[in-house]
Amino acid sequence: MEKVFSFIDNQKDKFLSELIDFLSIPSISSEPAYKQDMDRCCGWLADNLKSIGFDDVRIVPTDGHSIILAKWNGAGKEAPTVLIYGHYDVQPVDPLGLWISPPFSPRIHNGKIWARGTADDKGQLFCHVKALESFFKSGSPIPCNIILLFEGEEECGSNNLDKFIIENAKDLQCDTVLVSDTEWFAPGLPSICYSLRGISYIEVTVTGPNRDLHSGSYGGGIDNPLNVLCQMVAQLKDSYGRITIPGFYDNVIPLSQEERQEFLRLPFNETEYCDDLGISSVNGEFGYTTLERVWARPTLDLNGIYGGYTGDGAKTILPTKATAKISMRLVPRQKSKDIGEKIAAYLKKIAPPTVKVDATVLHGGNPVLVPMDSPGVQAAKIAYKEAFNVDPVFMREGGSIPIVELFDEVLHSPTVLMGFGLPNDNVHSPNESYSLDNFFGGIKTSAVFLNEFSKMKKI
Amino acid sequence: MEKVFSFIDNQKDKFLSELIDFLSIPSISSEPAYKQDMDRCCGWLADNLKSIGFDDVRIVPTDGHSIILAKWNGAGKEAPTVLIYGHYDVQPVDPLGLWISPPFSPRIHNGKIWARGTADDKGQLFCHVKALESFFKSGSPIPCNIILLFEGEEECGSNNLDKFIIENAKDLQCDTVLVSDTEWFAPGLPSICYSLRGISYIEVTVTGPNRDLHSGSYGGGIDNPLNVLCQMVAQLKDSYGRITIPGFYDNVIPLSQEERQEFLRLPFNETEYCDDLGISSVNGEFGYTTLERVWARPTLDLNGIYGGYTGDGAKTILPTKATAKISMRLVPRQKSKDIGEKIAAYLKKIAPPTVKVDATVLHGGNPVLVPMDSPGVQAAKIAYKEAFNVDPVFMREGGSIPIVELFDEVLHSPTVLMGFGLPNDNVHSPNESYSLDNFFGGIKTSAVFLNEFSKMKKI
Repeated sequence: MEKVFSFIDNQKDKFLSELIDFLSIPSISSEPAYKQDMDRCCGWLADNLKSIGFDDVRIVPTDGHSIILAKWNGAGKEAPTVLIYGHYDVQPVDPLGLWISPPFSPRIHNGKIWARGTADDKGQLFCHVKALESFFKSGSPIPCNIILLFEGEEECGSNNLDKFIIENAKDLQCDTVLVSDTEWFAPGLPSICYSLRGISYIEVTVTGPNRDLHSGSYGGGIDNPLNVLCQMVAQLKDSYGRITIPGFYDNVIPLSQEERQEFLRLPFNETEYCDDLGISSVNGEFGYTTLERVWARPTLDLNGIYGGYTGDGAKTILPTKATAKISMRLVPRQKSKDIGEKIAAYLKKIAPPTVKVDATVLHGGNPVLVPMDSPGVQAAKIAYKEAFNVDPVFMREGGSIPIVELFDEVLHSPTVLMGFGLPNDNVHSPNESYSLDNFFGGIKTSAVFLNEFSKMKKI
Repeated sequence: MEKVFSFIDNQKDKFLSELIDFLSIPSISSEPAYKQDMDRCCGWLADNLKSIGFDDVRIVPTDGHSIILAKWNGAGKEAPTVLIYGHYDVQPVDPLGLWISPPFSPRIHNGKIWARGTADDKGQLFCHVKALESFFKSGSPIPCNIILLFEGEEECGSNNLDKFIIENAKDLQCDTVLVSDTEWFAPGLPSICYSLRGISYIEVTVTGPNRDLHSGSYGGGIDNPLNVLCQMVAQLKDSYGRITIPGFYDNVIPLSQEERQEFLRLPFNETEYCDDLGISSVNGEFGYTTLERVWARPTLDLNGIYGGYTGDGAKTILPTKATAKISMRLVPRQKSKDIGEKIAAYLKKIAPPTVKVDATVLHGGNPVLVPMDSPGVQAAKIAYKEAFNVDPVFMREGGSIPIVELFDEVLHSPTVLMGFGLPNDNVHSPNESYSLDNFFGGIKTSAVFLNEFSKMKKI
């Protein structure tokens, strides 16, 4: 790795200059006015890949923005294959007036580079490109076979990438997927996210009388769908914050002592957390810390509720129906489909016979777990340590990253989330930035990862 | 009464012909286009009163439509005073296409008169006018002093009448108020409504975090205002359908055995009731029948609820707040203000400390009770029996009639609700009608009422 590291150290100016060019192209995928810039950005990135040594670089047109697929199989059949995913599209820049410098005129200040797309995701994606260049150009053979998969629609739904992956699953077979599109738990604390929660999202409608009724004439005589819905929802959790749906916890993998210890190491300040949210205290499932609750325990939340009169003032009706949107965040090995069926059945069971209950699954996704002792995670751990001289922390993520679930379900490949962003990078906001130390350290991390992963897979 | 009854029998054609004239004026109070017709109708009625023998007839202008105030004090200081209330305005006629004959061209068919305002309230109001005429013109002294108070804004809120009554309370002092603007429980079954429920209507908002949060990142870590609101609402009733707010039932007058027996005599068909509403069965407070529940027991219903995402599809937020509109129907002697304060305090008590609770009273009104053994109710009972040869039934009403509450609170006068409408009169709908038997019987009922009431008050 010495040759590679020394090449990286010598090329910092060139790498940064190229990143500035990349960032200067306003590749906003969600706004049709930027279609030409999207194409230009895609072409620029493909050209850069060719220039560093990739000879198989394809621009794949889609119904939306193009996908870049580049391959290198020079490590040989015995070597593992790493698929590196990233996206070259960026978020819109509104409100433009809040930017201190123009979003597509990158500026270096205070050890960071400031522009739209620096951290999300051009600057992170580029770490891998420059790591690969450093192997090629320092005369060090890349120890893994590489598939690069860069899309231009991450910020607007990834619809065409989903389709592409499903249709080309065989061609994308790999031993691990490597994604750098996440942030560290805190500055100076490289973080490996090894698990994502899934989701089961249903809409339930309770129907009572066939028309809205006068609450004076009928109030007290019949069940009111609004009251019934509230009673049903209230029954979904017990006083310990545990979900009461039968079988809900059946497949949940309990947190290990090791994981709980890891989480306790993290600099999480509950007072600051509450102050930021404007609440007096946290609350949740009995027996778990806040990080455990939001990362590693399943939960059930109403996302919306409505029924009856919702305008200003008073209207005295007993409404015909009431609707709630309920989502459950799931943890490994819960299955979205199974949980959706269980809650629908339970809601029908606990409803009084005086109402009709309709439950529709609106959306679902399974949780993802890449075991902490898996080769990819272990390679990332060593890579962070060598590049940043800090032991990384292990964390989970409470939300979903649909593309990671897709890699898991379609390619059956574990995904290593090895990011280089920081919590104060302002992704999706004005004045997005990215630490230069993390950029250069990220290039080294990527290089070490490939080296370590090839060794682990060989064993 | 014989002279009066025989006069009535002889004047049927004239009374009906006058009623047709009265009904032919389109006195729709809520539509400005009918302002001239409203004035014309008011003038017509005032002229009719003068023609039958009233010399003190005043048309009182208001900010809206005029009030008619007519007085007759010929019964002397020893005699009681009866204030007869009615309204000469009518509902709009839309949808006009559903009327079998034009709404302001009264038609006699099948023993009923068909036109807008027949039952609500011109035809009922006119019973009293013609009864008074029958006393005057048959040479029988009216046994009570009379105040006639006819308004033109009942169908659009009675705002100016409220003001008038409050400002002229002294001038309107009476021993009872007589109102004919209700319907019988069933055809052939004269009905005296002796109690109305009151209402306390509040809006409660539960506020959690200071912004909508991503349900993946925060779900499980903090209290969700939507779930909290549902839990709070669910706690407002126990499994017996009883309201759990401390002190809620403190002032409730229990139903007497006599009342319960009266209700059981009524031809109430629960199967038809459920079929009409499209529900499989009724439900409510344990230990009470449906009529008892909707007429004589207090209740608590959500009239509306909203919070979070209420559009189509799924949005994964933990919302910052949730709102419910909650109304409680009250029975004698609960007080609206007291109950509003009790529920607000209770909601704040049962809320977890992680949320803020705001409760605002939107609307209130006290229940009304005219005891079954009071002189007015007893006089009405005898009057129905003599005019229709049927013992009337005693019923209550689940809703409020704000004007009755006003008479109770401002004039401290009990109101006798002695109506002549039938359940199938289509009030507020196309093809409104009014039974001619009830019109002529109503005139006699009014005459007997005045006679009997004068005797009771003298004793």
